[in-house]
Amino acid sequence: MEPALAWRDGHIVAIDQTLLPHEFRLLDIATTVELIAAIKRLAIRGAPVLGAAGALGVALAHRQAAREGWSAGRLRAELDQIASARPTAVNLSREVAATAAARDPEAAALAHLEKGTALSIAMSQLGADFLLRRCPGRPLRVLTHCNTGGLACLGWGSALGVIRALHERRALQHVLVDETRPLLQGARLTCWELGQLGIEHRLICDSAAPFLIARGEADAVVTGADRIAANGDVANKIGTFSVALAARHAGIPFVVAAPESTMDPDTPSGEHIPIELRAAAEVTGTAAPEGTSALNYAFDITPADLVTAVVTERQVIEVTTVRSG
Amino acid sequence: MEPALAWRDGHIVAIDQTLLPHEFRLLDIATTVELIAAIKRLAIRGAPVLGAAGALGVALAHRQAAREGWSAGRLRAELDQIASARPTAVNLSREVAATAAARDPEAAALAHLEKGTALSIAMSQLGADFLLRRCPGRPLRVLTHCNTGGLACLGWGSALGVIRALHERRALQHVLVDETRPLLQGARLTCWELGQLGIEHRLICDSAAPFLIARGEADAVVTGADRIAANGDVANKIGTFSVALAARHAGIPFVVAAPESTMDPDTPSGEHIPIELRAAAEVTGTAAPEGTSALNYAFDITPADLVTAVVTERQVIEVTTVRSG
Repeated sequence: MEPALAWRDGHIVAIDQTLLPHEFRLLDIATTVELIAAIKRLAIRGAPVLGAAGALGVALAHRQAAREGWSAGRLRAELDQIASARPTAVNLSREVAATAAARDPEAAALAHLEKGTALSIAMSQLGADFLLRRCPGRPLRVLTHCNTGGLACLGWGSALGVIRALHERRALQHVLVDETRPLLQGARLTCWELGQLGIEHRLICDSAAPFLIARGEADAVVTGADRIAANGDVANKIGTFSVALAARHAGIPFVVAAPESTMDPDTPSGEHIPIELRAAAEVTGTAAPEGTSALNYAFDITPADLVTAVVTERQVIEVTTVRSG
Repeated sequence: MEPALAWRDGHIVAIDQTLLPHEFRLLDIATTVELIAAIKRLAIRGAPVLGAAGALGVALAHRQAAREGWSAGRLRAELDQIASARPTAVNLSREVAATAAARDPEAAALAHLEKGTALSIAMSQLGADFLLRRCPGRPLRVLTHCNTGGLACLGWGSALGVIRALHERRALQHVLVDETRPLLQGARLTCWELGQLGIEHRLICDSAAPFLIARGEADAVVTGADRIAANGDVANKIGTFSVALAARHAGIPFVVAAPESTMDPDTPSGEHIPIELRAAAEVTGTAAPEGTSALNYAFDITPADLVTAVVTERQVIEVTTVRSG
């Protein structure tokens, strides 16, 4: 599969994520203006991918500066514009600053890209090792939520990376994909990525997941994480708690795959993690009567006692022992 | 609120449910041909409402027969056509047969309509009594799933009837409405009905419900039922299990409101209830890549041990004792 982001002949090549799944188009980005536009219109998205876009953006700006004879002031102004293209994405501005401070920005950007990719593959393999130890003897049916593959992360992704590693070991039967309302990242992006990888999958409504788990139609649940508190509580896309609770009820593992950088030792527990409330219109769409109020939390908190293990690029942290089925 | 179905001056007056929530239009149905068309295009829907439409259809046909001088054979043929307008809705054909066998079909049809309405109001009051005993001392925040009001049932409905009874007693704070994917009956119909009744409500994604329940944002969950097995297992719209499990986890009541006719003593338990698998397209819509497989169960089974009580028009059956929070 094409990576979400690559560096080719001094250009950035990116999958235009606004067109997926109906059209696959690669953007060839040669200038900072093109990069900023692509970030602003969400053609490039996902926190780790935005970080890499920031790093590569510095390399791109240096090439353009050499080509067009920019002053040092002009270069600095361009970098500032890249860094602020998405004000809330801390990864973007952080990686622009880190790469700009490097002696050789292009080498630093490529190293960042390579490291992120390697990290995701290491995490994927550790996760597959863990699941195969936990659920030996049969090809697994794995349920996942939201989009956690190469489009949102680098390389193989997080939870979807674990699924890919199982598939490459011929240890995967199929994937149950939560559609992930309200924005349908599961239906739009995860189904597309699994299709690209030739991995068998079935789309389900989010509310069907707990029932299918209870009915014995999944051997394990794997998701990503947006933040992990010091006590092991996990903030992730809304709906994660629901499948974690069902996994516990059914006695199957609920595994979180996330890089070490997701762990936040300064936040003691989930109740200290602020949960973003997003616009009602994402939920009401055109179906509900005009003016309907909605309560649209973008994330939820899964308490540590429902988490079987957290898998990072370095380790597997077993949080709880799964109840026998 | 206008009833889903009424009898006025020898005509059937029905809410055109295909236009909700964006347009409210009453159909004035004077002939059997018009009635059959309205049933086939789902302008009239919901099993109890279809049963009443069958009963009123017999009265309508008798009026038309008298006006137009139909033969007995013609009348019989028209009744057969009404009965088979929706082949899977057993209520429709059952009520056509029952009403046609009555000495005075028009009186029998009106009695059926009146009985169904009275039954739903009795059930609603019993449900409100039960919840107020269980959760005393504060206006309640009630979460519900799918559409169970006057549009689908007669009168006040089942679960939505309980909510209406709480509202009329000034014992309701607000309703959390699951959108109810894939067909969005919660977003489209329940929000519309609550709006008509002036009841405060907030629409939520189905996958948010378990988290909101765990967070303490609901005092009780009330749903309807499609079938209740002899052991108390409940078949209902997909997603019901998920909120029942969350209610148990949070220690709040999960109450099922359904008429006695929903109880099926011939089915020993939930595993004997066949679950309808519907078309993938309902889930994939236009979001997923073309050709994506989906696993689209229309209903799920909530085991009796997650059900706090079943409320019918005659009684409250307490199935389990709620764990203290």
